[in-house]
Amino acid sequence: MTIKLYCFGESGNAYKAALPLQLSGLDWAPVKVDFFNGGTRTPEYRAEINEMGEVPVLVDGGVTLTQSGVIQHYITEKTGRFGGATPEEAREVLRWQFWDNHKLSSQAGMTRFLMNFLPEEKRPAEVIAFTQARLKAAYQVLEAHLEGRDWIVGAGPTHADFCCCGYLFYPEPFGFVRADWPNIDRWLGSIEALPGWKHPYDLMPGSPADRA
Amino acid sequence: MTIKLYCFGESGNAYKAALPLQLSGLDWAPVKVDFFNGGTRTPEYRAEINEMGEVPVLVDGGVTLTQSGVIQHYITEKTGRFGGATPEEAREVLRWQFWDNHKLSSQAGMTRFLMNFLPEEKRPAEVIAFTQARLKAAYQVLEAHLEGRDWIVGAGPTHADFCCCGYLFYPEPFGFVRADWPNIDRWLGSIEALPGWKHPYDLMPGSPADRA
Repeated sequence: MTIKLYCFGESGNAYKAALPLQLSGLDWAPVKVDFFNGGTRTPEYRAEINEMGEVPVLVDGGVTLTQSGVIQHYITEKTGRFGGATPEEAREVLRWQFWDNHKLSSQAGMTRFLMNFLPEEKRPAEVIAFTQARLKAAYQVLEAHLEGRDWIVGAGPTHADFCCCGYLFYPEPFGFVRADWPNIDRWLGSIEALPGWKHPYDLMPGSPADRA
Repeated sequence: MTIKLYCFGESGNAYKAALPLQLSGLDWAPVKVDFFNGGTRTPEYRAEINEMGEVPVLVDGGVTLTQSGVIQHYITEKTGRFGGATPEEAREVLRWQFWDNHKLSSQAGMTRFLMNFLPEEKRPAEVIAFTQARLKAAYQVLEAHLEGRDWIVGAGPTHADFCCCGYLFYPEPFGFVRADWPNIDRWLGSIEALPGWKHPYDLMPGSPADRA
């Protein structure tokens, strides 16, 4: 049975689930959620799909899962891939997933939303400056960690990589300039070179072009 | 050997680790980190303790772990407690841990810091208003989930509870008024009634009183 992933192209959080689904070779298909018209926040969506009012949501037969990190662990359960090669690596993967949720993707996604998907007169300048400064501290942690490393954990790609890259391939400006961070730039290049890799706008339905 | 937890009283993120250590009956002791004088951000701390520049950090013999969610899973590995009674519950626990990191504690901790631990003239009013509005949406999700439930997952306390309560016992104002959220209020009362429960300022060293 084909796994369904509720998602939309602009969501880096959904990309964190879609990318390892794609790279693992599992049989999956995206289901587009109309986020920009409130599709994740209707009473029906909260009651039937996700009480948290978010994407991604994975449905695999009778199993429904939300939160990209939980979906990533499920992909490892099904395929044995991307979860780390040892128990120690598995803990490291989990550690970077939490860090990403707390410090990186959460703020990158919000800042990108405020700077690109709100009408210009509604963009809160002080909030954007504040979150960009916090994001810079996060890029510094990741840049330092990738010094001398090809992947965030161990010798190959894991969910730690798929988490932390969640928002970093998008073209819309949010204060991340890839060329400013050489280790991050090299690491993103390694992810792009993985067989089957796709850009978020090619992997999931929906992009700003649809709404232009 | 006594488990060490690098922490300080004001950190709800550290409390998320300290509380289940305490309730599980493990032999542990806090090690105070002088956060307010930059103790988590020195080159030595980053090099030797945590490259992420954060608390909590757990040291158990040769094992060093960071991120409260990872420490929580380790406590479950050692004691069998608080991780959920079934594989489905374990996934639910993980789900709420990620949600908390993304939407609740991350923003509650930051808002409380900005409103209480910065000099008054440096408090960014627009940022505080923005994060308070986002936090309100998070309280609504938690309040709705706790309708008809004693605990976030299953029939007893889990790390899902210990995560989400991380900042909710603190007295400093950050926009959370317990009486406004009857289900959250009742649930916090259930946590307070657990044998061995302690308030963060009683469980970990350091509080605003020390700096008054």
